[in-house]
Amino acid sequence: MIIDCHGHYTTAPGELEAWRNLQIAGLKDPANAPAKSALKISDDQIRDSLAGAQLKIQRERGTDLTIFSPRASGMAHHVGDAAASLVWSEICNDLIHRCCTLYPANFVGVCQLPQSPGVPPANCIRELERCVRELGFVGCNLNPDPSGGYWTDPPLTDKWWYPLYEKMVELEVPAMIHVSSSCNPNFHATGAHYLNADTTAFMQVLTSDLFKDFPALRFIIPHGGGAVPYHWGRYRGLAMDMKRPPLKQLLLNNVFFDTCVYHQPGVDLLLKVIPADNILFASEMVGAVRSIDPDTGHYFDDTKRYIDAIEWVSAEDKHKIFERNARKVYSRLKARAS
Amino acid sequence: MIIDCHGHYTTAPGELEAWRNLQIAGLKDPANAPAKSALKISDDQIRDSLAGAQLKIQRERGTDLTIFSPRASGMAHHVGDAAASLVWSEICNDLIHRCCTLYPANFVGVCQLPQSPGVPPANCIRELERCVRELGFVGCNLNPDPSGGYWTDPPLTDKWWYPLYEKMVELEVPAMIHVSSSCNPNFHATGAHYLNADTTAFMQVLTSDLFKDFPALRFIIPHGGGAVPYHWGRYRGLAMDMKRPPLKQLLLNNVFFDTCVYHQPGVDLLLKVIPADNILFASEMVGAVRSIDPDTGHYFDDTKRYIDAIEWVSAEDKHKIFERNARKVYSRLKARAS
Repeated sequence: MIIDCHGHYTTAPGELEAWRNLQIAGLKDPANAPAKSALKISDDQIRDSLAGAQLKIQRERGTDLTIFSPRASGMAHHVGDAAASLVWSEICNDLIHRCCTLYPANFVGVCQLPQSPGVPPANCIRELERCVRELGFVGCNLNPDPSGGYWTDPPLTDKWWYPLYEKMVELEVPAMIHVSSSCNPNFHATGAHYLNADTTAFMQVLTSDLFKDFPALRFIIPHGGGAVPYHWGRYRGLAMDMKRPPLKQLLLNNVFFDTCVYHQPGVDLLLKVIPADNILFASEMVGAVRSIDPDTGHYFDDTKRYIDAIEWVSAEDKHKIFERNARKVYSRLKARAS
Repeated sequence: MIIDCHGHYTTAPGELEAWRNLQIAGLKDPANAPAKSALKISDDQIRDSLAGAQLKIQRERGTDLTIFSPRASGMAHHVGDAAASLVWSEICNDLIHRCCTLYPANFVGVCQLPQSPGVPPANCIRELERCVRELGFVGCNLNPDPSGGYWTDPPLTDKWWYPLYEKMVELEVPAMIHVSSSCNPNFHATGAHYLNADTTAFMQVLTSDLFKDFPALRFIIPHGGGAVPYHWGRYRGLAMDMKRPPLKQLLLNNVFFDTCVYHQPGVDLLLKVIPADNILFASEMVGAVRSIDPDTGHYFDDTKRYIDAIEWVSAEDKHKIFERNARKVYSRLKARAS
């Protein structure tokens, strides 16, 4: 079985965005806020939105189960306040739940959290609990910068985040560290902000004792870990300079990287540098890059091909990357999928 | 000849930092600002500060000339106003000039610019001109985020920066895109902010027509290009998705990466993915990482060893990386060093 741990519902019916636009237009006057019930999407619309996209790609590429979450750039925690963020998160998460209910063999849910800049993450606990306990979700996407590119909230290692981590540990769910769109003109979302956030989060945990406080907390750093594996020597050296423990001991029980790296040399490096136990297969489909690489004739984001092409990784390690690590990190998956 | 295009004067005598601390302490009341002349550093102190550090490392590693600039984290453009930034830049640049004068075969200067958040970069023209015309410097370090981690100034592709670019082109000097320290607790300087800035700057130029406006403008993106070479497929794909020209045509006449990547697999990837014409040898010494890699027995930042170890790069390409590209990009070097 092949589990893709990083898929977003980027193909949702247009009604979803239209509802969000109404919500945004009504932000100044709550009387104009659309009702949740104003969003009408039929099961057939959901089936249509997935059939030619995620389901087709799963079949074509030979992957089985996608750990599926709302469109990351759509979260936009910097737009509106915590109340608006909550309604928007509920709507997006309910829609993911409908996808997972319609196609239980193909999708398992991960939730968007109702974060808002300057609002304590404890505020997200209720929605996390609802998604995990009531909707059967197996994890959450955690935005390390709800400001959308100005980085005004405390680092992930600050006690600010601890109540949410306590709940994550209690529920046995990991977080993928994933920013949303950027409202800072310096940062292109998928080309800079996403990768910067990955790199930033890794360095935050490297310099802290977060995992001493939460030995069971698990973070997935997406997009192949941002710049981290490419600069693995830099990080090993920085940890030494700071008299930190070796990275393996310091964080590799808790930090995992996905394989969303869109060319062979990048995936080669990732699998060479990072232990197989810490890599989860993912493609980010349908996602950041949608073109076909003219040099290979295949989609840039068909990351399974890159892994398949590597001969020096053992079958056992590939099995870990494609399935076993996902079951370990998203431990609620064990009970659900087989 | 081997040219290291990225060295900082991180070992300056303590008097420099003491002067800066006085300047910072006096920021609230200009009457307390120390005079420039209050800084007393003798030639012997400078010799001592270099002898056991940069000069020793050059000898040990077999490199010849270092393109030398003030300590990057010391620039701290976010501290004080533009007037304070100017005095501090003059002092740091004058000190680099003294190093280059004492050891003309070993060092050639690159200047710090008197940037300040919210102040037009045109304000830096006079100091750039002084350093190039009077002190014989061959380039500048340009901070894409003078705010120190809040990214409040416009992107590098905004017309905000154009007057400075016009002067750079007129003077025939390139800029290394290099942030300074971070005052944002989210960003560790050398482990996150530096690499993020590299990645960010690359994506800014990818999405703009900056090099149509300035065909002769040259940027060096340090630290191996941040996350960029590792995600080269992502960038090629993003450019295609956005109907931009191929990267080679779009920016590889103007953008260059250094080799400050501190392990063999990272340097392997860099040299595999990026054309040899776009890579400049560098070590960032004495710099970000000072430890010895216990796995190899050599310093992490001894980047020459990684390049030497690669057998599949031709002697001609290595010659480009070690010398010819530096002479091309820092074109004023031609006249000076041989």
